[in-house]
Amino acid sequence: MLQPLTWTGHAVRLLDQTRLPRQTVYVEIFDERQMHDAIRRLVVRGAPLIGIAAAFGVYLGVKDATPEQLSTRLREVADYLATSRPTAVNLFWALDRIKRMGTSKERILRECLEMIEEDNRICRAIGEHGLKLLQQLHAGAKPTADRRSAAPASSRNILTHCNAGGLATAGYGTALAPIYLGRERGEKFHVYADETRPLLQGSRITAYELKENGVPVTVICDNMAPVVLSQGKVDACIVGADRIAANGDTANKIGTLALAIAARHFNVPFYVAAPTSTIDLPTKTGADIPIEQRAAEEVAEFGDRPTAPDGVDIYNPAFDVTPAALITAIITEHGVAIPPFERSLAEMCKTRMENRG
Amino acid sequence: MLQPLTWTGHAVRLLDQTRLPRQTVYVEIFDERQMHDAIRRLVVRGAPLIGIAAAFGVYLGVKDATPEQLSTRLREVADYLATSRPTAVNLFWALDRIKRMGTSKERILRECLEMIEEDNRICRAIGEHGLKLLQQLHAGAKPTADRRSAAPASSRNILTHCNAGGLATAGYGTALAPIYLGRERGEKFHVYADETRPLLQGSRITAYELKENGVPVTVICDNMAPVVLSQGKVDACIVGADRIAANGDTANKIGTLALAIAARHFNVPFYVAAPTSTIDLPTKTGADIPIEQRAAEEVAEFGDRPTAPDGVDIYNPAFDVTPAALITAIITEHGVAIPPFERSLAEMCKTRMENRG
Repeated sequence: MLQPLTWTGHAVRLLDQTRLPRQTVYVEIFDERQMHDAIRRLVVRGAPLIGIAAAFGVYLGVKDATPEQLSTRLREVADYLATSRPTAVNLFWALDRIKRMGTSKERILRECLEMIEEDNRICRAIGEHGLKLLQQLHAGAKPTADRRSAAPASSRNILTHCNAGGLATAGYGTALAPIYLGRERGEKFHVYADETRPLLQGSRITAYELKENGVPVTVICDNMAPVVLSQGKVDACIVGADRIAANGDTANKIGTLALAIAARHFNVPFYVAAPTSTIDLPTKTGADIPIEQRAAEEVAEFGDRPTAPDGVDIYNPAFDVTPAALITAIITEHGVAIPPFERSLAEMCKTRMENRG
Repeated sequence: MLQPLTWTGHAVRLLDQTRLPRQTVYVEIFDERQMHDAIRRLVVRGAPLIGIAAAFGVYLGVKDATPEQLSTRLREVADYLATSRPTAVNLFWALDRIKRMGTSKERILRECLEMIEEDNRICRAIGEHGLKLLQQLHAGAKPTADRRSAAPASSRNILTHCNAGGLATAGYGTALAPIYLGRERGEKFHVYADETRPLLQGSRITAYELKENGVPVTVICDNMAPVVLSQGKVDACIVGADRIAANGDTANKIGTLALAIAARHFNVPFYVAAPTSTIDLPTKTGADIPIEQRAAEEVAEFGDRPTAPDGVDIYNPAFDVTPAALITAIITEHGVAIPPFERSLAEMCKTRMENRG
């Protein structure tokens, strides 16, 4: 597996995900300003990984503070890093967790390193629960109406949007974890990867990591997903999440809502896979989730080539909210939450707190 | 209005639509091979305009034939041009029409020039019928739930996909005709233009021509349309068509199905605007429409920059089929067809034949 984030002993080494798939370039991050910039520019991305990166950012920001400065500095740096991106709740969750480490730099660093280990365990657990779900699905699957496709019939066919794989976490990924785990156990998968406009995390990053890991992948434009779904080519859609409200409404990369609507239209199961740290119980519904608006250039230019006339108005929300009613189940490290999500998600979060206690 | 196709007296002058919005470049087409290439490479595109371009291609291919060669040559050139693109039925319709001009080069050229005039009249008639439809819609519109948007409330807000404007026809466009006509009469419109992956006809061409013609336009990625629809920002979706089957199933640019599903989900009217030459009664349903598959590079590269890893599998259908059940109405030059489309479309085609007779 590629390592999108490692601690070198004096810096955080990040795989620059803006350069994929052309270049595999690593950058070293030495202070909180560089980390803020790396998160904002999507050098490091993916909700779980953003949390870990921000935690390390705090450590880098306080490591030279005197004991007297430490608690003030800790708050300042955490507040500063909280301004890097607004939607993924894992960022705020990780910063809160680090702030609770109080006044010991060693404890802060240890907690950062533990977050990496924990993320690995969580991704694996999501993989176990997700794989079981897919196996049940396949066992009970009815023959589909129209298999015009080249998708291998003996494989499970999964459609995913954006990147919720190994490069979005410190481990195995969330949405892709059941696939990696299944492959280790000899099962066959084939993945349709939405390219994911505007920043193409699907074609650039998901296709890249699946190919590196030997999983057959077919890239499609986002607007082709309904065609593939209509042809009976897809056993299940699985996506990650940036924030899950208490009622199950889920903020994820722009285009997730479009996919969920199409999956419902064609009666294909639509799963969200995420660690419980993505569940934000204080956020009651999706209407309360802040949605990041990003620069027009992401849509209106590719490289330095314009794709729209100069000065034309662009609307570029980075995320959308899929209402709980369109989600079949939410796969976490503590099991599979099914509707009504108010109850099942609260249960998942309770399990997390108990496991900690 | 920009002129995407003009007859110079010895050649066809085409606006090279692959170069928009960066460059406004015209190319002159002197023979049928150049025209075949121009159609295949999308230098000229849009179902109605492809038909006219192909008709001129036939004339260019036969203009140096001797009287003895003419009828053989006519058939050869028409059959050759029919291989340029498979989905838009206007291509085949126009070639058949030209073939009926028989053995007079002068009649063939006259018919080509008449097609331009006729297209202008048809686009204007589509505009009249479409505008009336939008006016009724607006009059009876209920206040929408959630207008978080910057879309001007006093304007009609239209969402369109791909380009079915003046650059897809010899005239005013089909989907955009009601907007241009309304503007001439002092009505306000604002258009959301889906960028339309992979070839970006929406951001490159629709945004360009709307801007040139003074219509406010906001470009969005295709996968953002459901967000805009969910916010109550859109009064109606209007798209063009490449082929309409007898039952109303409509082949149009890839992504149209995704939009139609989302429009239905949010109860926004979804209109198709097309000349009756796009209605193909011998094609009974959408399942009988051949769908053009295009090169992987259209998805996997932008300019010369790769957007997906080398060698990854790409699925790139150029069109999809929107089932009649998702279409609110079909706007033609002879009026507005509503379900059941079997009957209303047959009626439209009958009107066309009678007007001819």
